[in-house]
Amino acid sequence: MDIPTFDDMLAAHERIAPHIRRTEVRTSAYLNELTGAELFFKCENFQEPGAFKVRGACNAVFGLSDEQARAGVATHSSGNHASCLSYAAMRRGIPCNVVMPRTAPRAKKDTVRRYGGKITECEPSTSSREETFAKVQAETGGDFVHPYNDPRVIAGQGTCSKEFIEQVDGLDYMVAPIGGGGMISGTCLTLSTLAPETKVIAAEPEQADDAYRSFKAGHIIADDAPKTIADGLLVPLKDLTWHFVSRHVHEIFTASDPEIIDAMKLVWKHLRVVMEPSSAVPLAVILKNPEAFCGKRVGLIITGGNVDLDRLPWLAA
Amino acid sequence: MDIPTFDDMLAAHERIAPHIRRTEVRTSAYLNELTGAELFFKCENFQEPGAFKVRGACNAVFGLSDEQARAGVATHSSGNHASCLSYAAMRRGIPCNVVMPRTAPRAKKDTVRRYGGKITECEPSTSSREETFAKVQAETGGDFVHPYNDPRVIAGQGTCSKEFIEQVDGLDYMVAPIGGGGMISGTCLTLSTLAPETKVIAAEPEQADDAYRSFKAGHIIADDAPKTIADGLLVPLKDLTWHFVSRHVHEIFTASDPEIIDAMKLVWKHLRVVMEPSSAVPLAVILKNPEAFCGKRVGLIITGGNVDLDRLPWLAA
Repeated sequence: MDIPTFDDMLAAHERIAPHIRRTEVRTSAYLNELTGAELFFKCENFQEPGAFKVRGACNAVFGLSDEQARAGVATHSSGNHASCLSYAAMRRGIPCNVVMPRTAPRAKKDTVRRYGGKITECEPSTSSREETFAKVQAETGGDFVHPYNDPRVIAGQGTCSKEFIEQVDGLDYMVAPIGGGGMISGTCLTLSTLAPETKVIAAEPEQADDAYRSFKAGHIIADDAPKTIADGLLVPLKDLTWHFVSRHVHEIFTASDPEIIDAMKLVWKHLRVVMEPSSAVPLAVILKNPEAFCGKRVGLIITGGNVDLDRLPWLAA
Repeated sequence: MDIPTFDDMLAAHERIAPHIRRTEVRTSAYLNELTGAELFFKCENFQEPGAFKVRGACNAVFGLSDEQARAGVATHSSGNHASCLSYAAMRRGIPCNVVMPRTAPRAKKDTVRRYGGKITECEPSTSSREETFAKVQAETGGDFVHPYNDPRVIAGQGTCSKEFIEQVDGLDYMVAPIGGGGMISGTCLTLSTLAPETKVIAAEPEQADDAYRSFKAGHIIADDAPKTIADGLLVPLKDLTWHFVSRHVHEIFTASDPEIIDAMKLVWKHLRVVMEPSSAVPLAVILKNPEAFCGKRVGLIITGGNVDLDRLPWLAA
């Protein structure tokens, strides 16, 4: 296992700086009053392709030698990683091949194509995805950039907390959503050195609580086809992310889909930013566990803002 | 007529600085590509009460002597001015009386009450509003802060462009929505001194184009019951705002309601901020007149972000 180091994170930040935004941190007097905590929201949804995943993607893409870069990159993803890797590849001017299930939302496919990514469709099953991806990679020779179980990706995601700590002093807690664990791992990587007194909390949908159960059991448990409105958080932990989660995460809290939707709407209304359901899980767990956060300074990472504006979850029939 | 001066604007900025946010300016590579212009969006929707109107309201409230302040302030408004004046009064700890039509959206009334504003309802007609307001003012002695035809309010709104010019150099155009003309007047007040080379463009809904027709005719024309999705822009120009509009505005462009809704959705999708229909008129007129803006550096003021999230215009039946 190739565990990324703090120095890898520092190198990543330097490498990606020209390609990402140093996103702003926002506050809301209303949400502070509501929770009794002092909340700071880092708006990674304000990255050009709309998600923190541009950090890890750019670190992988711009870290390739010119020779490696010629064959481009490849990945499988139905979400933000596909768009962000395409975006990074476009900025370097190299090919990006993405395997996506044919059932992925058209909006996601459109974004990948807008950034020049080439999509190969597979059936929505693990076996079809793996088979299709192996074929694509064999044909193109593209460097495989895994959505989260890749040291370059984790080091890249860690740059978010570095900025956050530079922007806001003395956080008691840092809360981020957990799916595969890329963002949480990067957060642990950075904060365990830069701000070890800041406790890292992972926030997970109740209906996809494999990380919670893994954390309690002491080994990775993968869910069988979880289903939650937080569609960015469906994937399981892998060895690299488990390394960080099992060692550095202070606690994992979960929230139900209705609680996630309520929190999402509150942020849209009072912070006036567009964020996806996955990004609402941190606020949802804070609202659900007020005693744990009351009186504390809490950082929350708004991980992404790519939402189908024609299908808002609180307007679903 | 008591025309506010550039020094009034400077004094306003110093007075309100502790009570407002220096809102960020955001960009989108996608929207730049789409328009061929370089667009800069100043996010006044990120003010705590969600609109630039907190600037003028705070300038009026914090400019009162202690003696004047004791009786508080009063206004009539069904929109952001009511919330922002209540917010400013709450911060100073003085009463705020607001006359609102009984038909105003409950969400707007709730916001006024959350900030401690006291609502007196009137019928949705000018005569009822004036009669009710006269009574409220006579009873309370509150200082009348008009939503826009007030020199303190215009000087306050002018602080937005001062920040904007400090944040972004060399704008060719500054585009803001026009309703009663408070924001546009403040913009003219500030830019005519600080950046006379930056042309001020007003953006108006086609279905409430009284400012456009006034501008062409050379005198104020008031609409008879205009109806547009841009509900913040229904009110007519008054003498003070006409003073600035007639002297300093370079051009007024209009856009239809469907064009406004399209522009609104584009900003939600690509800037990932929640803004009201009124705030979308500037982008709508830029998209409609590409030849006027192509290759230019253009500032746009996102005036507010108070939207009923249960009734989004693109989802209306």
